[in-house]
Amino acid sequence: MDERLRKQLEFLLEIDKSKKVVRQTYLSDGSRKENDAEHSWHLAIMAILLSEYANEDIDVLKTVSMVLIHDLVEIDAGDTYAYDTEGNKTKQEREVKAAERIFNLLPEEQAEKFRALWDEFERRDTPEARFAAALDRTQPVMLTDKQGGKSWKEHEVKKSQISGRIKPVEEGSKELFGYVEDAIEKNVKKGLLRDE
Amino acid sequence: MDERLRKQLEFLLEIDKSKKVVRQTYLSDGSRKENDAEHSWHLAIMAILLSEYANEDIDVLKTVSMVLIHDLVEIDAGDTYAYDTEGNKTKQEREVKAAERIFNLLPEEQAEKFRALWDEFERRDTPEARFAAALDRTQPVMLTDKQGGKSWKEHEVKKSQISGRIKPVEEGSKELFGYVEDAIEKNVKKGLLRDE
Repeated sequence: MDERLRKQLEFLLEIDKSKKVVRQTYLSDGSRKENDAEHSWHLAIMAILLSEYANEDIDVLKTVSMVLIHDLVEIDAGDTYAYDTEGNKTKQEREVKAAERIFNLLPEEQAEKFRALWDEFERRDTPEARFAAALDRTQPVMLTDKQGGKSWKEHEVKKSQISGRIKPVEEGSKELFGYVEDAIEKNVKKGLLRDE
Repeated sequence: MDERLRKQLEFLLEIDKSKKVVRQTYLSDGSRKENDAEHSWHLAIMAILLSEYANEDIDVLKTVSMVLIHDLVEIDAGDTYAYDTEGNKTKQEREVKAAERIFNLLPEEQAEKFRALWDEFERRDTPEARFAAALDRTQPVMLTDKQGGKSWKEHEVKKSQISGRIKPVEEGSKELFGYVEDAIEKNVKKGLLRDE
């Protein structure tokens, strides 16, 4: 087999492991936690359907590509829960090391392209990265609100924590930020998020 | 909330159910079967990485969109295994009914756009649909070959059945067809696919 195709298939088999990286967010029916592949698929469809709400003009294919690959580093680095203070101290170092290994399974120019997309997502300094971040932080609220706040209760999440977490939504999409803010207020009233 | 956004979010919550539609293909480590959301995520990344192998020029965003939504109908219609003769008799009828319900949760013009994409995928009469079909039939071979033929053995799949199943790969990508043909030959020799 051609060396280039061999590398691409090796990468595609490696990222199959994303299907086993479990996140803290439950499916909307609460039956189990979702994994990175499912989460990324959901974000990709959101990027296509909700692009009209991006604050700035975006390249939809670039945004979709970004969300599809944004969590691949967790194959090595693991999922770090948003409200895990200790884990978040070492998150960046672990994820950069993972990016170096995983993307470099690809032919060189594809490795560079995916690495650049991931770096851009992490920096949030372009319209696409800001909108991708907005989606990444809206989707767990959407699922957790629908499902009854299970992961918030399990981790005793406070309103102040989630308010910090959703700030990037406003930078990517004012409309989605409005939705997320309302959902949080509703869940504070219900007692599913601690009001402090 | 705005009626348009409300409909879009309702659709996005409805399709969360794709994470629970289990396919017959096992993950590459054989630990469990994959679901539609994971499968579609995998195909979307394949569409981006392997577009150079499409026989014809393709619009990558259109192809990615198509593979992301191609299995949503299975939320209602269920997964019909490729080699299930009885199930395949009623598959189309069940899936069209599902398409009518699920896509119509969206605002009208988005419902029409997604429905048209799904119809195109089913008809395989455009370059994007032909390449999407090639990916859809390459990915299970890639996983099953890596994992040791578990689903082929479970269903006693014959070489003649899989040869028919992979025909559309050739129409979408000669290179991917070459890879898939080699993988099948290898597995026939290993006795994991029945040579008849």
